[in-house]
Amino acid sequence: MNNQLSLLRELMQRQSVAATIIPGTDPHHSEYTCPHWQLRQWLTGFTGSNGTAVVTLQEARLWTDSRYFLQAEQQLEGSDFTLVREGFDEEPTITQWLAQALSEDDVLAIDGTLFTAREANMYEQFCGENGFMLATDFHPAERIWKDLPQRPLAHTFVHDEQLAGETVQSKLSRTVDEITLTGADAMLITALDDIAWLFNIRGNDVQFTPVVIAFAWVSNTEQILFIDNEKLTDEVRAHLNKYNVHIKHYDDIERFLERRSSHETVLIDPDSVSDSLANALPGAKVYSRSPITNLKAVKNNVQIDGFRHAHERDGAALVRLFRSLELSLAAGDKINEIDVWNRGKDERAKSELYRGDSFAMIAGYREHGAIVHYSATPESAATLEPDGLLLVDSGAQYLDGTTDITRTITLGNPTHEQQRDYTFVLKGHLALARAQFPVGTCGVQLDALARMPLWTNGLSFLHGTGHGVGHFLGCHEGPHSIRTNLNPTPLLAGMVTSNEPGIYRAGKHGIRIENLLLCVPGDSSPEFGEFLRFETLTLFPYDTKLILTDMLTREEIEQINNYHATVLARLSPLLSNEETQWLTTKCATI
Amino acid sequence: MNNQLSLLRELMQRQSVAATIIPGTDPHHSEYTCPHWQLRQWLTGFTGSNGTAVVTLQEARLWTDSRYFLQAEQQLEGSDFTLVREGFDEEPTITQWLAQALSEDDVLAIDGTLFTAREANMYEQFCGENGFMLATDFHPAERIWKDLPQRPLAHTFVHDEQLAGETVQSKLSRTVDEITLTGADAMLITALDDIAWLFNIRGNDVQFTPVVIAFAWVSNTEQILFIDNEKLTDEVRAHLNKYNVHIKHYDDIERFLERRSSHETVLIDPDSVSDSLANALPGAKVYSRSPITNLKAVKNNVQIDGFRHAHERDGAALVRLFRSLELSLAAGDKINEIDVWNRGKDERAKSELYRGDSFAMIAGYREHGAIVHYSATPESAATLEPDGLLLVDSGAQYLDGTTDITRTITLGNPTHEQQRDYTFVLKGHLALARAQFPVGTCGVQLDALARMPLWTNGLSFLHGTGHGVGHFLGCHEGPHSIRTNLNPTPLLAGMVTSNEPGIYRAGKHGIRIENLLLCVPGDSSPEFGEFLRFETLTLFPYDTKLILTDMLTREEIEQINNYHATVLARLSPLLSNEETQWLTTKCATI
Repeated sequence: MNNQLSLLRELMQRQSVAATIIPGTDPHHSEYTCPHWQLRQWLTGFTGSNGTAVVTLQEARLWTDSRYFLQAEQQLEGSDFTLVREGFDEEPTITQWLAQALSEDDVLAIDGTLFTAREANMYEQFCGENGFMLATDFHPAERIWKDLPQRPLAHTFVHDEQLAGETVQSKLSRTVDEITLTGADAMLITALDDIAWLFNIRGNDVQFTPVVIAFAWVSNTEQILFIDNEKLTDEVRAHLNKYNVHIKHYDDIERFLERRSSHETVLIDPDSVSDSLANALPGAKVYSRSPITNLKAVKNNVQIDGFRHAHERDGAALVRLFRSLELSLAAGDKINEIDVWNRGKDERAKSELYRGDSFAMIAGYREHGAIVHYSATPESAATLEPDGLLLVDSGAQYLDGTTDITRTITLGNPTHEQQRDYTFVLKGHLALARAQFPVGTCGVQLDALARMPLWTNGLSFLHGTGHGVGHFLGCHEGPHSIRTNLNPTPLLAGMVTSNEPGIYRAGKHGIRIENLLLCVPGDSSPEFGEFLRFETLTLFPYDTKLILTDMLTREEIEQINNYHATVLARLSPLLSNEETQWLTTKCATI
Repeated sequence: MNNQLSLLRELMQRQSVAATIIPGTDPHHSEYTCPHWQLRQWLTGFTGSNGTAVVTLQEARLWTDSRYFLQAEQQLEGSDFTLVREGFDEEPTITQWLAQALSEDDVLAIDGTLFTAREANMYEQFCGENGFMLATDFHPAERIWKDLPQRPLAHTFVHDEQLAGETVQSKLSRTVDEITLTGADAMLITALDDIAWLFNIRGNDVQFTPVVIAFAWVSNTEQILFIDNEKLTDEVRAHLNKYNVHIKHYDDIERFLERRSSHETVLIDPDSVSDSLANALPGAKVYSRSPITNLKAVKNNVQIDGFRHAHERDGAALVRLFRSLELSLAAGDKINEIDVWNRGKDERAKSELYRGDSFAMIAGYREHGAIVHYSATPESAATLEPDGLLLVDSGAQYLDGTTDITRTITLGNPTHEQQRDYTFVLKGHLALARAQFPVGTCGVQLDALARMPLWTNGLSFLHGTGHGVGHFLGCHEGPHSIRTNLNPTPLLAGMVTSNEPGIYRAGKHGIRIENLLLCVPGDSSPEFGEFLRFETLTLFPYDTKLILTDMLTREEIEQINNYHATVLARLSPLLSNEETQWLTTKCATI
């Protein structure tokens, strides 16, 4: 048995705990966490972004989703953890499994700081129905993890108003209006991207998302930021001071909440605020989605301009990347999937506004492309040859916007099946991009546009078609989406979404084509009302060698040619003559 | 003040009632009601299928939806009722209006037999929150309506197993299985189409839907039909007896329910069972959608064959109808919109299996076509001329299936706008018809396919794209739909749905194209799973004079030509030589 697991079980025994659930998240319900909150990774060895360990005195299991089946299998090999594949076959859910693993009056203990109010509520109900006891004050990390990493103390920085397009004062005022509308007096904010947006601050505390680890409290009369002192520079202090933002220590949040008046009604987002903090409040609560989630999703004109510029620089970096791959292959150089990452990162880093990648870059050659969240290791990294498909999904954090683009290219001699698959995916991608739809339309109503060319041919992909994207913030943000799920959030002008249909043939190839789209006002008439449509932000050509033009309509051909003309016109000013020449070939009329 | 309203207010005063709500439905929550339950119509003069009267001692209002704004305006003219347009401008909802019209402790009285359990519950909550009192035992019809029509006592008849495709025994057994799955011991069934389906019986009690007014009770050990004795023939008695269906009087239902054991758990559909009957039961209830709604929606192979044959006869009748209109116009005969109804009815009635129309036929010439639920009166009926568009929406009840078809034709000299509009609507209609989609897909995911050609050109229509259709039953039935609403019901093989996009230009013309589609198994592979697609049941050509072929893709042109070839091949055997010749012209390759 691994030592970590023994330490956990010893603690469980001392505290009479029959089972515990160790999630992969932090007190802010973040998608990416800093090492301080990576207890699950320390315990199991599994490094994926979604995974939950469940440990009893006899058994140890790890739940993860289909993106990570392969990775988890490898990383759990030889450990005492058994992998449970979520949604696969007849595999049990965590509660189904616990229901049979535990006996009456057994204690299920969790760390209430790492579960949202809604999750803890669900486990409370589960325990009640099954005769178990739920304890939410189980904090194993400090007790068993000897080398528990510190919380990051790196410096916070101000996100300039010239880039954010709105002052903190204006954001606070709009937030307070929304809080008041829900009937609450104040709001507890724990989502890191909400806090970064609201106070126009950023940091380097977690990978891929430039957020700062902090809590916040906002009411009509006060605004408080709870943050480790070491993280504040004079510049940040002056910036916060300018907007009367009080500063308290990160660790003071729970005590602060406990001492609030019981007459105060507080807005809590049950899907983001932790159970511990929600319960610390003595007064009434309004449970409702964070109004900041909605405010932040609608980008202002400065942010939109920033997005456009960021995509020009990003497109130019990709021209240099893909051209260099082509030249290296032609020269017979050995390059593998990890080299693709490194070159991509280097090309993007040439922009002064680059502040890191927006997620872990995916470069999947041949059959690796069929693994949706493939992450090459030095052992697995395939060497490119002048043949087969290469899927590259990558993105960056620039001060003026976040990017996320996927291109699939042929390195030579595409098969008819590859071209047919590519053209189906492209047809769906184009159909979504040219959609116009009435105000009030939700993503689920548009999702099938991107899937139908595949569906009508008996093909499909299982991931979402579109996710929201933050402005120099999370590469995945809500509240909208374009998925088969019945998400009731309408798309609004100013929202950004990805458009990324794909097809994956296990053992053969993966194809995905992804652009970011900006939702903008469309036609409008007194008779038929107001419409919205999409402006494509991403600027990089599709691979015309993979397109079967016979399968396209005149409208689709025109759409591709128009897009390629735009790409060429907007990227050329940022490119050398050789690069422009290369791009001109790629953007040639079909 | 009209006499009816005075009588109602006198009763209200005697019973200390401050306000009452008079709905347009019956104790079975039917879309179409028999005269016995048309109190709202008697009170207000408004005859539309959706409308609710609300009366206080001072004011009287009628709520209806956009389909009926015009009709309600006309029918309420000179009455004491003020029209409230649902969803229009800032018009209040019924509860918003009552909240300000009533004072604390006022009594809001409703007839609990005419409100579903869910509706009554909503009013109970509303009254609680506003300090009003809800009484559900207010039954004005018997007290104030002197000439209250009797309940219909017409004979019930057996729907032959050869046409229904399943025995009562099998249906009862499947229903009991579903009841048991919900944890209930028995089920109270009040929806008339559920009862007609379950017992393979039909009747003529209400217009357009061949149902029988009755209640039913089903458990593992007994099945009881509550029905007026006069309605039962020897044949029906023998049929019910064969399946051990006990018969009780219609009026005995409430007493029967009151005397059930309090240990019995009963399944109740809160959207169909009335508040009075739900409350009569002493034991526990499981509130859940009627399992029969789901069972009945999936048609068996006999029903599917019946649908196909019914559509052949229906298509042939329409060939005769549209040909006769063309001949009459050419001969200079005067025919108006009501003549179109009569001819349509006559042509359909030539089939021995015809048992009436499935809804009130719509024939809308020129600007009348833009009124979505236009119903001509002798005064309004327009005379056809060899010019302009004619929209005809009609359907029939045949013993072997129900039909519902809309065609829009030009009577001569179509304008470019008419052709463009027609082609947009047709493109959407075709896109939905050729869709293939994975098992699990809901109608809301497909809805935009039918709308997108209009949407991308700044046009739209506000009604649903598709409704379920019963088998010799309701022309509108659930649980599935193809609408913008987020209905979470997946489409299943065997379901029938309409496909009816349209466009309406007020004062100019209306265009709608409607076919019924059958959901059938599509492609299937181990890699990409199982798909569903549609088979078009309706057989009648589109008007090729209104199609701008330049706006169509090759795929769309092929789809139209294939459909027209099928129409011609399947209808010709039922037509005379002259009719076949006429149809051949209409189905000519484009």
